[in-house]
Amino acid sequence: MKDSASYQKKKRFFEGMITLYGRNAVEEVLDDNAVEIHALHLAESNKQEGVIDRITAKARARDVEIKYHSKAALSRISRNAKQDQGVALDVIAPSYQSAEALLESPASSGRLLALDGIHNPQNLGMIIRSAAAGNIDGILLPKQGSAKLSPLVMKASAGTLFKLPIYYCDTLPEILETLQAQGWSIFGLSSHADATLHTLAVPAKTVFVLGNESEGMSDAVAAHCNARVAIPMQRGVESLNVAVTAALLAFLPAGE
Amino acid sequence: MKDSASYQKKKRFFEGMITLYGRNAVEEVLDDNAVEIHALHLAESNKQEGVIDRITAKARARDVEIKYHSKAALSRISRNAKQDQGVALDVIAPSYQSAEALLESPASSGRLLALDGIHNPQNLGMIIRSAAAGNIDGILLPKQGSAKLSPLVMKASAGTLFKLPIYYCDTLPEILETLQAQGWSIFGLSSHADATLHTLAVPAKTVFVLGNESEGMSDAVAAHCNARVAIPMQRGVESLNVAVTAALLAFLPAGE
Repeated sequence: MKDSASYQKKKRFFEGMITLYGRNAVEEVLDDNAVEIHALHLAESNKQEGVIDRITAKARARDVEIKYHSKAALSRISRNAKQDQGVALDVIAPSYQSAEALLESPASSGRLLALDGIHNPQNLGMIIRSAAAGNIDGILLPKQGSAKLSPLVMKASAGTLFKLPIYYCDTLPEILETLQAQGWSIFGLSSHADATLHTLAVPAKTVFVLGNESEGMSDAVAAHCNARVAIPMQRGVESLNVAVTAALLAFLPAGE
Repeated sequence: MKDSASYQKKKRFFEGMITLYGRNAVEEVLDDNAVEIHALHLAESNKQEGVIDRITAKARARDVEIKYHSKAALSRISRNAKQDQGVALDVIAPSYQSAEALLESPASSGRLLALDGIHNPQNLGMIIRSAAAGNIDGILLPKQGSAKLSPLVMKASAGTLFKLPIYYCDTLPEILETLQAQGWSIFGLSSHADATLHTLAVPAKTVFVLGNESEGMSDAVAAHCNARVAIPMQRGVESLNVAVTAALLAFLPAGE
């Protein structure tokens, strides 16, 4: 039992680790004391100057382990040879956690956004920013088919990446099924729905599902929705940007 | 008097002309019968193939004048040598008109968005899309300090560029002053304001002003606001993306 619990803990630790890269992004995160940092990775080929000096000094000041690698090994860590600039950072954001944590401590109320196939990092960052600013308690982000939490997402989130819970899972359907069994209502946004957001009484425990911008929700996810809901539009406009839709949901008046 | 009226008409005609460029953008606009096309400009160096054939055929079918130019002359027309791909199109969108038209036919109600320094074409396109889909009657877009109506804006607007009135002017303050004199209330969005959007009773004739994302409203524009209004945010988030703010305004419930 103890071994299994320890294994689970370790597994979650590594699953919940985000590896960021790029000199500006890494320096910005080193400045954010709310984020726990696991390790700083540097390419041996980096010239010791300017921003690299600052990054090294900031990591030392925070007692962060610094590891040096060949350029090729660093690319394997960052998974983005083109944009890592010889710098990567493993962070443990308490806000980034397994969706199982959500299932294990059932809430009596809440509003979640579930993202089904948001590939565009800029959209994902904007969604996180609006959700953090609005009345959303967390984002469900499947590891499959979503943009990775990267410096691009971080930039578009304008400093809000670690401000609200982001629950990762492998795929959405399994989590939505369990949430539904726990009394959550699942509403899929769809421009073809008959029900509209204006007339919707938002239940105390609600998950709003946003699909991919061009293709909408996947069938597997749509099958788990209690209902589909549309945002009424003027002038025959057919759809809204997905980050705009997320913002309209995030700023729906809070429940009673 | 007649000459002056004719001059004014001609002046407005050319001011209201939008020159788009790039093969895909031009082909897309040629397919949109709601848009009046003044002339198609082609570089003599274009190979007569594929998309150029289609563009030429579509222009002929619509009886649009086709003008051939040297590559350098075409760049002067498109004002974007890097992205014109040897193709430019002068369009007259009835929805794109001088703000004077707005002043000359005073409305009894309406909601306008005034954009003070939106440089980013993607933000401008997203704002147009949300405004067209929502309860906004028109956008006030100063020629100075705004992104030009370009293919980038068109793409981000997702086909909505010509769907709602866009009123151009040289600078905002003069127009805002006249609108105010005509009974419009001018509200500047600002994260530092005491008044919030939740508690605001939106008057029948309202202009919402959105400032530049990093610098906010200019002082000259801020001086013309009846009040500044904030959107309340959670978790200490300091600002929203300007296109998101525009969407929240566009989807405020319509007036009684």
